[in-house]
Amino acid sequence: MAEIVSFPDAGRADALLVRSLRDGVLRLVLNSPPANALSIALLEALMAEFDKAGSDADVRVVVIASTGNVFSAGHDLKELTAHRADQDRGAGFFETAFRLCADLMLKIAHLPKPVIAEVDGLATAAGCQLVASCDLAICTDTSTFCTPGVNIGLFCSTPMVAVTRAAHRKQAMEMLLTGETIDASTAKDFGLVNRIVPKQYLAQVVAKYAGVIASKSPLTLKIGKEAFYRQLGLPVEAAYDYAAKVMVDNMLTQDAEEGIGAFLNKRTPEWTGE
Amino acid sequence: MAEIVSFPDAGRADALLVRSLRDGVLRLVLNSPPANALSIALLEALMAEFDKAGSDADVRVVVIASTGNVFSAGHDLKELTAHRADQDRGAGFFETAFRLCADLMLKIAHLPKPVIAEVDGLATAAGCQLVASCDLAICTDTSTFCTPGVNIGLFCSTPMVAVTRAAHRKQAMEMLLTGETIDASTAKDFGLVNRIVPKQYLAQVVAKYAGVIASKSPLTLKIGKEAFYRQLGLPVEAAYDYAAKVMVDNMLTQDAEEGIGAFLNKRTPEWTGE
Amino acid sequence: MAEIVSFPDAGRADALLVRSLRDGVLRLVLNSPPANALSIALLEALMAEFDKAGSDADVRVVVIASTGNVFSAGHDLKELTAHRADQDRGAGFFETAFRLCADLMLKIAHLPKPVIAEVDGLATAAGCQLVASCDLAICTDTSTFCTPGVNIGLFCSTPMVAVTRAAHRKQAMEMLLTGETIDASTAKDFGLVNRIVPKQYLAQVVAKYAGVIASKSPLTLKIGKEAFYRQLGLPVEAAYDYAAKVMVDNMLTQDAEEGIGAFLNKRTPEWTGE
Repeated sequence: MAEIVSFPDAGRADALLVRSLRDGVLRLVLNSPPANALSIALLEALMAEFDKAGSDADVRVVVIASTGNVFSAGHDLKELTAHRADQDRGAGFFETAFRLCADLMLKIAHLPKPVIAEVDGLATAAGCQLVASCDLAICTDTSTFCTPGVNIGLFCSTPMVAVTRAAHRKQAMEMLLTGETIDASTAKDFGLVNRIVPKQYLAQVVAKYAGVIASKSPLTLKIGKEAFYRQLGLPVEAAYDYAAKVMVDNMLTQDAEEGIGAFLNKRTPEWTGE
Repeated sequence: MAEIVSFPDAGRADALLVRSLRDGVLRLVLNSPPANALSIALLEALMAEFDKAGSDADVRVVVIASTGNVFSAGHDLKELTAHRADQDRGAGFFETAFRLCADLMLKIAHLPKPVIAEVDGLATAAGCQLVASCDLAICTDTSTFCTPGVNIGLFCSTPMVAVTRAAHRKQAMEMLLTGETIDASTAKDFGLVNRIVPKQYLAQVVAKYAGVIASKSPLTLKIGKEAFYRQLGLPVEAAYDYAAKVMVDNMLTQDAEEGIGAFLNKRTPEWTGE
Repeated sequence: MAEIVSFPDAGRADALLVRSLRDGVLRLVLNSPPANALSIALLEALMAEFDKAGSDADVRVVVIASTGNVFSAGHDLKELTAHRADQDRGAGFFETAFRLCADLMLKIAHLPKPVIAEVDGLATAAGCQLVASCDLAICTDTSTFCTPGVNIGLFCSTPMVAVTRAAHRKQAMEMLLTGETIDASTAKDFGLVNRIVPKQYLAQVVAKYAGVIASKSPLTLKIGKEAFYRQLGLPVEAAYDYAAKVMVDNMLTQDAEEGIGAFLNKRTPEWTGE
């Protein structure tokens, strides 16, 4: 597994993924410039972090950021290509790599804590998929996005699963068929990102979002995020059957009683996470 | 059931829901300021109105408007909280309230007549869900929208069913996770509302929309609205199987024969609703 | 079947559909002005062209354009109306017409080559459906769009299948319920078109898009386009299971090996389509 550097040592330049945790916000910095390629090692490092974050009560929100001018260029093409020399022409390795990457994206949706992409620079192929897969995405005005697999004979079929669920259909198709790069403003129109900020304010704005979310009841966030993705896949009638039941269970939690009581009495709630 | 005041008495200030019917447009005004909370009484009053409107040939379009500065603040938190004293800690009452609210939203989709939200002011939680659930929504430029349940420990899980079906995914997630309020322009970008108008023109623009729709064949509207929601939930091939059959049946109605004949002969059609 | 005129005779004014093929781009011009109505003959001519294009290695991209001021006004109302005199009041003919039209739209999605709508003028009813059904759509700034069936007693139920899959729900509903016409800019906001260009540059911009796409591996485009539509209908977990498998198969093609090799070695790839 890739080495992960924790907060006090975050200055170390040799770890693939740099981790810091402060005020409930777990910050994971992709630290493999210039491309921040999603090698097996980096995918596994991210997966391990998400596994831990899921059950770590100190983590309330996760932010994924990057070092350098490229947020992430997606799969590590050199690593993939090296396995063409395998006896199975790489089939086994490719399956491992694409499966792991898909599992990471699903993990983000299944994580009981919100995940924010803090994007500064180019997000391409599986890197663009990572942005699309985060619950929220905030980017600099010079960030760019593409799914350029078609240029190298490898259609971005897995990135497309995330991109088509975030954007209008024709807009996703344009990115996928032409492989061309879109700017931040177009990405916002498409639904890929929530907000664009000047570079010097990126960390500040993301911290504000993360802080706002970290101030909510972790139990409520967990209930809501799980319900969000689950109801999306249901017919509307079934979605309501399910969501109405979630609301009843949520009402019976201590945090809802505390939150509603605080609201009615105009005081600040204190969450117990129960 | 809540008292409903019909048109000649619409000036009465004590009814929860004020009703008027003119030129085929049924106007239902939420009249429980300042919050226009969706108490059981108001939900039942709305449900009863929709039940009647479905089979009332004089009703061709329904408009939902409001009194005061808040379109609707959603569920009545005081009413919900009072039932925490019940033997079951409120579980039964909560289930009734959330089920009734979900049923009302589904009722709007199933009503064979178009429903327009005329929004002036804040639409929050189930109030925002009500806007999202109407077939069309027109709002003033000072209207605002939010799903702030996360602030009080009660994630807006049922509102989310409607909001995620109207807006891009990340935009819906931002509203739900942060609980923050968005302005009319953002709501239009998100797909929550169709049109924004200055306050002094709201009623006029809604009346124009309602008038345009009321001038169509009620049978055609019924056929089309039912098909709209039904085909949405189907895979595209099944949607075409279904919609092609709907088109054939529609062609064989008297109103289609009349409408197409009138169009080809450049005269105004006269609908019989058959 | 309608007569189709091939490129050297493209000047002939009497063919319903004018065909030309150059540099991998098959251009099909709807040539039945003023309405370019989708009569049975024109629908069959389009279907026949798509059937041939699917297996013609010389065709890499298809463009659908039109003659005159109307891109297409949809079904041929006179033709439909004439069949009201049939013994079954037209039911059999209507079924044939709507089924054929739906099959054509599905054919576009199933065609292993990208299809671009080049729109100049009004696209209405099934004409609007045709635009929505193409993989990409580029239009002039004076183009307009509507689904006005409700005006003639025949709700645009089949066009709605395509329009609701391209646009936000409320925006689609507004077009369908009011029957009113939207401009190019609104259509772009809605997701119906990818790009708007001044009239004098339309052919040039479409040619640029078509050329970019025609320069990719045809095999990669086939793999990707098929995966695009297939994964859309799946729950996200199943979509990833499927897409990850597609990626592995794609990696094992000669074109992916060539494309990735060329990229890593900074040379231009040469596609064999295998």
